[in-house]
Amino acid sequence: MTRPIRTGGRAARHAARAAPLPDASRPVRPGLTGGRYKPLTEADVTRIHETALTALEEIGLSGAPPSGVASMTAAGAVQSDDGRLRFPRALVEDMLACAARDITLHARDPAFDLDLSGARVHFGTAGAAVSVVDAVTGDYRDSTLADLHEAARLADALDNIHFLQRPMVARDMTDDQTLDLNTLHACLTGTRKHVGTSFCTAATVPKCLDYLYAVAGGEDAFRARPFVLNSNCFVVPPMRFATESCEVMEACIRGGLPVLLLSAGQAGATAPATLAGAVMQAVAECLAGVVYVNSIAPGHPAIFGTWPFVSDLRTGAMSGGSGEQAVLTAACAQMGRFYGLPGGAAAGMADAKLPDMQAGWEQGMSDVMAGLAGLNMVYEAAGMHGSLMGFCPESLILGDDMIGAALRCVRGVEVTDETLALEAMRAVCLEGPGHYLGTESTLSVMQSEYVYPTLGCRISPKEWQEAGRPDLIAKARVRRAEIMAGPNIAAFAPELERSLRARFDLLV
Amino acid sequence: MTRPIRTGGRAARHAARAAPLPDASRPVRPGLTGGRYKPLTEADVTRIHETALTALEEIGLSGAPPSGVASMTAAGAVQSDDGRLRFPRALVEDMLACAARDITLHARDPAFDLDLSGARVHFGTAGAAVSVVDAVTGDYRDSTLADLHEAARLADALDNIHFLQRPMVARDMTDDQTLDLNTLHACLTGTRKHVGTSFCTAATVPKCLDYLYAVAGGEDAFRARPFVLNSNCFVVPPMRFATESCEVMEACIRGGLPVLLLSAGQAGATAPATLAGAVMQAVAECLAGVVYVNSIAPGHPAIFGTWPFVSDLRTGAMSGGSGEQAVLTAACAQMGRFYGLPGGAAAGMADAKLPDMQAGWEQGMSDVMAGLAGLNMVYEAAGMHGSLMGFCPESLILGDDMIGAALRCVRGVEVTDETLALEAMRAVCLEGPGHYLGTESTLSVMQSEYVYPTLGCRISPKEWQEAGRPDLIAKARVRRAEIMAGPNIAAFAPELERSLRARFDLLV
Repeated sequence: MTRPIRTGGRAARHAARAAPLPDASRPVRPGLTGGRYKPLTEADVTRIHETALTALEEIGLSGAPPSGVASMTAAGAVQSDDGRLRFPRALVEDMLACAARDITLHARDPAFDLDLSGARVHFGTAGAAVSVVDAVTGDYRDSTLADLHEAARLADALDNIHFLQRPMVARDMTDDQTLDLNTLHACLTGTRKHVGTSFCTAATVPKCLDYLYAVAGGEDAFRARPFVLNSNCFVVPPMRFATESCEVMEACIRGGLPVLLLSAGQAGATAPATLAGAVMQAVAECLAGVVYVNSIAPGHPAIFGTWPFVSDLRTGAMSGGSGEQAVLTAACAQMGRFYGLPGGAAAGMADAKLPDMQAGWEQGMSDVMAGLAGLNMVYEAAGMHGSLMGFCPESLILGDDMIGAALRCVRGVEVTDETLALEAMRAVCLEGPGHYLGTESTLSVMQSEYVYPTLGCRISPKEWQEAGRPDLIAKARVRRAEIMAGPNIAAFAPELERSLRARFDLLV
Repeated sequence: MTRPIRTGGRAARHAARAAPLPDASRPVRPGLTGGRYKPLTEADVTRIHETALTALEEIGLSGAPPSGVASMTAAGAVQSDDGRLRFPRALVEDMLACAARDITLHARDPAFDLDLSGARVHFGTAGAAVSVVDAVTGDYRDSTLADLHEAARLADALDNIHFLQRPMVARDMTDDQTLDLNTLHACLTGTRKHVGTSFCTAATVPKCLDYLYAVAGGEDAFRARPFVLNSNCFVVPPMRFATESCEVMEACIRGGLPVLLLSAGQAGATAPATLAGAVMQAVAECLAGVVYVNSIAPGHPAIFGTWPFVSDLRTGAMSGGSGEQAVLTAACAQMGRFYGLPGGAAAGMADAKLPDMQAGWEQGMSDVMAGLAGLNMVYEAAGMHGSLMGFCPESLILGDDMIGAALRCVRGVEVTDETLALEAMRAVCLEGPGHYLGTESTLSVMQSEYVYPTLGCRISPKEWQEAGRPDLIAKARVRRAEIMAGPNIAAFAPELERSLRARFDLLV
């Protein structure tokens, strides 16, 4: 379903550059193993788990649709007179035992498949921003379908953006069906990587499934390698199923889409203000989601999406860029590892309105901590500003360098006889020139161990002055234009595009 | 020796604001305990340790001054025909056994003393920048004594800058003695916090000691609470003592100053290009430093200063802002914890020439990782640009917010019955309004658990537009002016200042 790549010329060079390098020669790559940062002690983890089980057993969740009540009570959940569904511990444990583990999230191009086994880490976009940010002027304007398609194309070209969950809402779409269908088309025709999306209501799902099956070349082909995931806010915290979203989820499960079980409480508002409480509630809610999914389709692929957000308690406004958020997300990552479930959470969100220094530290700290904690899917990892209100293309491009550095940190320090370099030290100190410049051991790790930024500036102040003080944002803007002026490697084959346009109302 | 604080009026309000808040009511504070991030496995740590011991035994170090050779050979080191000093394992182990642990680094005002026990984390400045960076224009100009004094005053006012090691060189000083003496005076009259400094040669030390004893009110008073540390590059990596710096170190130890044993190899140039090798060499060199110090004065306070830097191997230039640097520093922190010695290393260095987004992620990632790894002294934590070439006052001010967030991450997630909030959840879900806004449990943690940035912007995009799109750097510039226009709380009492000026050539 990918357009055949012509040999020779500019397009081929672009294609070669855009293709993932062989694993062995890349200093960083998707799926490096994290987990060396453990914000919680083992006792903390157990205590959070036990408390979540108690919450599910004694408090339970309201709001499940009749279909969900039916499947969950059939599995062993108990509906009380107050309408809440309560979950005996044994039920949760049974459902955890049959939940899907070590899953692969597929991409349209298998080269970009995501292996979510163990503590393998992947970074990508996500969000529902309603604005696009002008990186220079600070203008926030309504985001459109064209913006979303551009984001997909940028993500396709950026090595360290491993997947595209739709980062913003196409506000120029007039109705739910048009929005959901065209969101898919804008994403899929812009990137070969794994795509995540939401659906407004269950009513829009059938046509979107028809579209996806057509793209895949048939329903069976899609079900064999589902390259789109349903990001699903199945709860309205605290402890209430989001009735309509649950119906969407059921439709997606039946249709063969993996789901992201997204619990997005906000500490101090819809979740406890204490970080431990926010983690506990998110865990309880996601465990309820695990019960839900597996009561319908045992072993159906689902991401444990503990996404609690932080509030600035002075105003109640969200603060995705805070240290509290960074450590909260890392703790959630650790809980996902505890269950051995594929975990996803949000990091990399800037409160800063522009890609400025504040944005850098907000995004960098939380991204690297999520990676070090072994989060399988780091959502919102780049491009998001104004506490998820705005998406900035230049920031996404700079985020590629930032995440490259974060991945280098996740990779960590390899300790072997060779890397310890005792013999190199002996030669340099006792026989050699007294330095390691240009030695065989230095040259041999130059490409394999070191990450070089694409736009990040490492020249000396003197060289920088002589070069006219190049500005970071201006460089990102140039790269944005270059990527968009290049060929769209992700575009569908013309005959597929034509047949889809004949069947569906596609606006990209 | 601090100026008495008048009661009432503007000065008192400033003083109250500048004074550290009581521990219990501060969400973050100096000395929070890190260590939940362990970049190395236990086996890695042991292997690095064992290899360093082998390197000390078999390769050893050249370049020790005769006085150092005398004390170290008296302790058990062996000088060979090739002039190198080699260290039997038993000697290193003996010296580690008597090395100072859990030390306090004093400050002129005891409220700012630094407790380096366990994995307690402190952030501060350091460096030898030769330029001051104009945050707006990007101008790099020679740094002066006045710049250094300003940096000290800013550090005094910033809660999350816990100490001041001299971040830049006063290039308007004409000779070594004037430089070293006035560097001390510029720092000490600008901040009440712990001060670190270097000395050009051993010849300048005696007059500086006279000065310090006078400031303290006598030699005994200084020795009881030495509020200045000697940052000492005692090695020229690889594995060579820096002869003159060693003489400075000996003079400082005799004079009662704690020392920072600073091994600053550059991976791929003066240290192995492999990260493991760079850690190993730094550990070996600092262990040699531990032998050196303790052979002169057993138990003398010394910081285990494993500061390997990273090169961009394409150019050989330093890259303090890289992911490689962040993980290297974190690994060094872990080695310090392994020995139970007070550890110091460099993080927070930006390659970016300006306080832009790149600077933010470079500084933020490495600072938070150093803190999470439990580094006792995080040097260079804020203000440094152009790979240590430039110091930027506005960046230091913004760094205070950045480090506040990093400290919040170090503090981590407290898991108790109360913070798990099961009962709050029960009340909210089963009896209450369905949300946690304004609940007792929310309000009670608003000040104690949440860090609020001073300049970092959290308002919504809409409010930000209405406020005229306030610029981060402009806000930092305003705060800089406010701090400098305020009273200098750290200034010496007038009579002390007068008597010092009568005795010493002071230029501030």
